[in-house]
Amino acid sequence: MAKASASTARKRRPRPARSSARVRSVFAGNAVVGQSGGPTAVINQSLVGVILEARRQKAIGKLFGARHGVQGLLKDDLLDLSRQRTDLLEQVADTPAAALGSVRKKPTPEECRQILAACRRHDIRFVFYIGGNDSAETANILLETARALEHPLRVIHVPKTIDNDLLVTDHCPGYGSAAKFVAQAFMGDDCDNRSLKGIKINVVMGRHAGFLTAASVLGRRTPDDGPHLVYLPEVAFDEQRFVADVVAVIERFGRCLVAVSEGVHDAGGTTIAERIAARAERDAHGNVQLSGSGALGDHLAHLVRVALPQARVRADTFGYLQRCFAGCVSPVDAAEARLVGRDAVRFAMTNDSGTVVLERRPGNRYASRTRLVALSEVAKHTKSLPREWISAAGNDVKPAFCRYASPLAGPLPVIARLEARR
Amino acid sequence: MAKASASTARKRRPRPARSSARVRSVFAGNAVVGQSGGPTAVINQSLVGVILEARRQKAIGKLFGARHGVQGLLKDDLLDLSRQRTDLLEQVADTPAAALGSVRKKPTPEECRQILAACRRHDIRFVFYIGGNDSAETANILLETARALEHPLRVIHVPKTIDNDLLVTDHCPGYGSAAKFVAQAFMGDDCDNRSLKGIKINVVMGRHAGFLTAASVLGRRTPDDGPHLVYLPEVAFDEQRFVADVVAVIERFGRCLVAVSEGVHDAGGTTIAERIAARAERDAHGNVQLSGSGALGDHLAHLVRVALPQARVRADTFGYLQRCFAGCVSPVDAAEARLVGRDAVRFAMTNDSGTVVLERRPGNRYASRTRLVALSEVAKHTKSLPREWISAAGNDVKPAFCRYASPLAGPLPVIARLEARR
Repeated sequence: MAKASASTARKRRPRPARSSARVRSVFAGNAVVGQSGGPTAVINQSLVGVILEARRQKAIGKLFGARHGVQGLLKDDLLDLSRQRTDLLEQVADTPAAALGSVRKKPTPEECRQILAACRRHDIRFVFYIGGNDSAETANILLETARALEHPLRVIHVPKTIDNDLLVTDHCPGYGSAAKFVAQAFMGDDCDNRSLKGIKINVVMGRHAGFLTAASVLGRRTPDDGPHLVYLPEVAFDEQRFVADVVAVIERFGRCLVAVSEGVHDAGGTTIAERIAARAERDAHGNVQLSGSGALGDHLAHLVRVALPQARVRADTFGYLQRCFAGCVSPVDAAEARLVGRDAVRFAMTNDSGTVVLERRPGNRYASRTRLVALSEVAKHTKSLPREWISAAGNDVKPAFCRYASPLAGPLPVIARLEARR
Repeated sequence: MAKASASTARKRRPRPARSSARVRSVFAGNAVVGQSGGPTAVINQSLVGVILEARRQKAIGKLFGARHGVQGLLKDDLLDLSRQRTDLLEQVADTPAAALGSVRKKPTPEECRQILAACRRHDIRFVFYIGGNDSAETANILLETARALEHPLRVIHVPKTIDNDLLVTDHCPGYGSAAKFVAQAFMGDDCDNRSLKGIKINVVMGRHAGFLTAASVLGRRTPDDGPHLVYLPEVAFDEQRFVADVVAVIERFGRCLVAVSEGVHDAGGTTIAERIAARAERDAHGNVQLSGSGALGDHLAHLVRVALPQARVRADTFGYLQRCFAGCVSPVDAAEARLVGRDAVRFAMTNDSGTVVLERRPGNRYASRTRLVALSEVAKHTKSLPREWISAAGNDVKPAFCRYASPLAGPLPVIARLEARR
């Protein structure tokens, strides 16, 4: 599909269309690209994918970079990306976090009109917006405003998120590298916990979806490897049950490594972190701030200490390290992040607005391809880890999850143990 | 020096010495190796260095591995390391944390006598103990007990610590890899903070010494790169001054990335973490537990929020990730960790007990060599970051520190930024 759009795009200008001529006639002009939401280790791969492909497309004149997403369009804070050096761009692609700057902002109807005014001013007909489901919603709002105002605009959402919670797509660029980080962190921490036995609780990012916390198991090789317990937002979290689980693992292995999602919540849907936080901060999309605080881990460690006063109990909150660690990138993730950026531009040549999704190709060896779907299919809502990948007891994940996620995280370091000869 | 000991060691048995014959006559028998204290990413390199070199030395019969350090000698929990497969050992060397298991234990006089009884039982004449300054103290206590009981024993301490706080040695195996982790974490987090501006506080390990926290600056390249503020245990921490520093950086850069050592303390010497912790845990060496809790970071974030209520403030505590992350190893650090293990065995052939230290060779290119010094020179006490490497204001480190630490952390990823063309 992407290839098809690429070959069409080689022609200088799109042919006048027979039907829906109003839409087709706008398919040439300047373009803008922006980054939005929490950055990832590979979001700049998508940016560079857009930049390099936009240079190849004759229908695109100038490519602007909006600093801090829609904020850059509102404040006319735009970079000319047409003349950045290619060798520099390749280095930027390998640099974590959003090179253009990011933003967490849902534009108001008035701001949407201002953004469209900026697009008119700069003859912008293509908007490429790299972000998660909140950013897809922003893209969709912008598109709907443009249609209402009869402003010719194509808006392509380019997916990224470490949470892997976007709808429709098989998986999301950014997830593989974060999963690799979490897997490697647990592999090392499991060795650490084996060295100095005790109870270790690690809090992993993931507000609504447990994909990243589940990645903690990707390095497990033997039955006593940790994490021994995995708690996800997909299953109601019961504190008494949690403590009983830890006690059972201690009785079995003499140690216990726990992975907990920051988004775990009680049966009523209130997150444990929310209950703890005296003053919960909310961002513009109405999300409570769960990261950047050690409160949940400390609270869970306290529960365990009460039950097992003699035990050595520690808690770490991985926090922001897991989304932008320099030098921990999954090669597959980097390649796919580049691909969705490139194909966003190709799709924009022959299609209307939409969001780029990834799907697996059939076959034993992992391979993926892109497809364009409507923004409304992805905007705002999130996907959860399928229940059939979670153990019956709700405190671990099944091998089916590993088959899904391992190719995305890529190769992991080898962990070896001495043979138990006496 | 190491080479000299190696060539001597090729001979089957040491020659009868003319003087101090009592000591020289014990120089053949079995050996034991143990690991102690907080594990590191390269402590198994030292273990494998000991194992492979002990196989080459005819004066050494069997090599036992003590599970969980002195605990293994007390409980007769010993592995026979003589027959482990070499290819497996090479994989173990690349595996983080202590493959034999570690322990935080200072043996009592009675336990020392039990340990010596175990050494007699197994004909052990060489003890190789891999650990930090607490482990050097344990090694020294053991040696003194052996001398008092006239038990022929050579005890060689093999240095490891991520804190880099051992006396005499130029630097310590384990530090370089942890420094690399901290540097890369800050490089990524600085990009993250540049993307979504705000105040970010990262708490780094290091109870008494600021070497690891100082490593946060190793990836800085431009004047506005973070961390913008660095607080070390070597300088008294003033909370009001800290808040004022953050406000000043915000005014200058519109964002602020802070590195804080977990061991920062007030002018009276009480750590801030201690003041916060309602119930401070102490380990067997009398150290307060500062890691595995997000309390210090959360406290500092709260101070900043009070002063700058509109700012986005986050805190992360790196915790145990920084000492054992799988797949983040400095090649120089790995090689030196192997070297000190190997040379510990070589020194044991021709010298009495002691601890292996590293020194820099003169010249422009970084290179190091080993030397043996008395255990008492290293045991128990710690080294601090030299004051002349800390800025006059006490909230940053100077380039002299980077010249010291960069070769130890090794190459770092490249961070690139778009050119600011409009």
